[in-house]
Amino acid sequence: MERVDSLIHARWVIPVEPEGAVLERHGVAVRDGRIVAIAPSAELQARYSAAEERHLGEHALIPGLINAHTHSAMTLLRGMADDLPLMTWLTEHIWPAEQRWVGEAFVRDGSTLAMAEMLLGGVTCFNDMYFFPEATAAAAREAGMRAVLGMIVIDFPSAYASGPEAYLEKGLAFHEACRGEALIRPVLAPHAPYTVAEPWLERIREHAEALDVPVHIHLHETAGEVEQSVQQTGKRPLQRLDELGLVSPRLLAVHATQLEAAEIERLAAAGAHVLHCPEANLKLASGFCPVGALSAAGVNVALGTDGVASNNDLDMIGEMRTAALLAKAVGGDAAAVPAAQALRMATLNAARALGIDGAVGSIEPGKAADLTAVSLGEIDLQPIYNPLSQLVYAATRRHVTDVWVAGAPLVRDRQLTTIDAAAASRRAAQWGERIGAADRGEG
Amino acid sequence: MERVDSLIHARWVIPVEPEGAVLERHGVAVRDGRIVAIAPSAELQARYSAAEERHLGEHALIPGLINAHTHSAMTLLRGMADDLPLMTWLTEHIWPAEQRWVGEAFVRDGSTLAMAEMLLGGVTCFNDMYFFPEATAAAAREAGMRAVLGMIVIDFPSAYASGPEAYLEKGLAFHEACRGEALIRPVLAPHAPYTVAEPWLERIREHAEALDVPVHIHLHETAGEVEQSVQQTGKRPLQRLDELGLVSPRLLAVHATQLEAAEIERLAAAGAHVLHCPEANLKLASGFCPVGALSAAGVNVALGTDGVASNNDLDMIGEMRTAALLAKAVGGDAAAVPAAQALRMATLNAARALGIDGAVGSIEPGKAADLTAVSLGEIDLQPIYNPLSQLVYAATRRHVTDVWVAGAPLVRDRQLTTIDAAAASRRAAQWGERIGAADRGEG
Repeated sequence: MERVDSLIHARWVIPVEPEGAVLERHGVAVRDGRIVAIAPSAELQARYSAAEERHLGEHALIPGLINAHTHSAMTLLRGMADDLPLMTWLTEHIWPAEQRWVGEAFVRDGSTLAMAEMLLGGVTCFNDMYFFPEATAAAAREAGMRAVLGMIVIDFPSAYASGPEAYLEKGLAFHEACRGEALIRPVLAPHAPYTVAEPWLERIREHAEALDVPVHIHLHETAGEVEQSVQQTGKRPLQRLDELGLVSPRLLAVHATQLEAAEIERLAAAGAHVLHCPEANLKLASGFCPVGALSAAGVNVALGTDGVASNNDLDMIGEMRTAALLAKAVGGDAAAVPAAQALRMATLNAARALGIDGAVGSIEPGKAADLTAVSLGEIDLQPIYNPLSQLVYAATRRHVTDVWVAGAPLVRDRQLTTIDAAAASRRAAQWGERIGAADRGEG
Repeated sequence: MERVDSLIHARWVIPVEPEGAVLERHGVAVRDGRIVAIAPSAELQARYSAAEERHLGEHALIPGLINAHTHSAMTLLRGMADDLPLMTWLTEHIWPAEQRWVGEAFVRDGSTLAMAEMLLGGVTCFNDMYFFPEATAAAAREAGMRAVLGMIVIDFPSAYASGPEAYLEKGLAFHEACRGEALIRPVLAPHAPYTVAEPWLERIREHAEALDVPVHIHLHETAGEVEQSVQQTGKRPLQRLDELGLVSPRLLAVHATQLEAAEIERLAAAGAHVLHCPEANLKLASGFCPVGALSAAGVNVALGTDGVASNNDLDMIGEMRTAALLAKAVGGDAAAVPAAQALRMATLNAARALGIDGAVGSIEPGKAADLTAVSLGEIDLQPIYNPLSQLVYAATRRHVTDVWVAGAPLVRDRQLTTIDAAAASRRAAQWGERIGAADRGEG
């Protein structure tokens, strides 16, 4: 008998690769944080002796979900100012709150709150863009969560940095400090074409090539952004990025609700990735990302929640559902984005975009044991014809019971093992009281 | 001290009327199934002596949610055949399954499963359209749930009735049998303008007036349905109904994704109601209901899940969220359908449409104590700036902890009190096995 650390058996294992596969009464053998084998439970038990064995009798075991775009520290602003016109929301509430409150403590506490929510909802990895990424990294290390963290660059000063040069310097130092870490991966994250001047975008391209990392950027989020660019430069933002050499397999284009047919072709030809945030696009009335057309053209589309201020949660199960439903209506095709594709957008496609698909995104031998168990045994999910349908169209984040990152159990029977939930909640409430009072003009 | 049966205190009481009100540390006094008072907790405790007192320290107490359009028995078909083109789904899966399996036992077991899910998700009342409404009524009586049940009429024969005359006769007998019941209300439910011939629609109008009940009908669900009507009769379906005298305050028009400006005006002028099912419209790629324009014109819009086969759940908290998000994108206005309006669409607007707003739909003295408690204390809902935002944009159906119908606790600490959940789950699984085997050609 070969020794492994653990055997995790489930009623259904959904490995994502091959797409659509649902393996009944299978299990996963894990050693040193990696998947050693995926096979029928009886076969695993005959082959391996395990220090620990879990039996998830009515669960689907899936690859850990990957939130491909978020601003995790903003979780402290959840629901602060909803249902307002976009510019009122930004200029009278979100920006003033950020200006007043953002600092290392805000980012650390906000990121911890975000990770608590994400882990409990089955998310094992997130791609973040925010100030003080070092503080998010520290919180992620404490939690044991996998994180792709942006070296943010923006023209405007903040508590974090005085201007683009300082942002970039801090980002590069952060990248250097994370070398060799298995769970933390810094990537370049210029905020948007309209908030980062071209000379800095050029330098970012050079650094991206030198460091071999993706470039994570908001792009074509709204019609207004595209129009403004055309008025100011005669070019649409994507064209400007293309002329700067940024439209490549490194490009992670967030939102992309405004795309002409030729632009879809260009993204496909370049091997660029789209990070689709359907709920934020709906909430801010930004438009509809043409997911069906992008996928048909061969563009890799991954899924993210965006920040909680425009969502208002970090629920990737809910986001899969919204993505699958919305693509049908937008494409006029009830067969668009089936459940298996939605799950792939939330796992393997995200891993590909982030350049970590060698390590995560599917349940395959050799990959890290980033795993999520979702209970399908409860009455609100009966009867079960197809576990994939149940997962995407009917389950909620509260059906998640167990989560592992690199083999470590970070959620066990719906309880966080590495984050002190009571303390994180208490700190969030304290922030909420202060921020809310100031937002109402009382502080 | 005045005696009451119970006092229910909550951190926040959201009465829906007046719209947007959030009352902190208030409570509700209940006697004989009715709300006697709503006031600050301390005041209630000084005024009333109660046999039972509940303290919901971190909860929002809202009116019980009303699912304004569903086919509850179809819950047995949850996820049977997803992600297929509409006609394949209907003609190769849903209709054959219904033809083979629908009968009294199917409807009783399916309705019980649906009620279990709805009650656990905070729904206290549902407006149903399906065969064998007597079986749904029997299940609702056992569960103690409030139900508005369609006297269904359709041209096609089924196990329930041989044709429109038989449907109508059975429906009228059902209506007669329910006279005097507080919780069960039969209404007329012709399936759609394209499935019920005009002579029957005329008789339905006469009966609706004689019985003083609404007429619940699918209307303008898809562009294809409207085109077909124009080709066959030269008229759009709404115009045909109008000429038959059916466009009135009794009309409950389900879906309404295809509406011209003049039709919106006509619905408003007639005082007709729209039952909006956003998730089903998305899933079946039917189109987008113009909720913003309807509301602006003064049309009463209520919210429903539709049947589980096209959703795939009966989650009214999720449906509020989808409705609020989608209306913003469709209307191009981030301020469209604020959280308070979404909650109203799922409570008081639904009660108005169904003609039961004298009895339910808001927390007001004299109304029935149909109440739902949602826990906002959990870490995935922190911090809290506005409980209404939290409820609509971040909470899930699994944050519901307690539900009362006419003062009776039907869900207590997340457990059903009147439905045997284990038995209902077991029966659902048995149906699922038989139906699934037949659908795969094995049975």
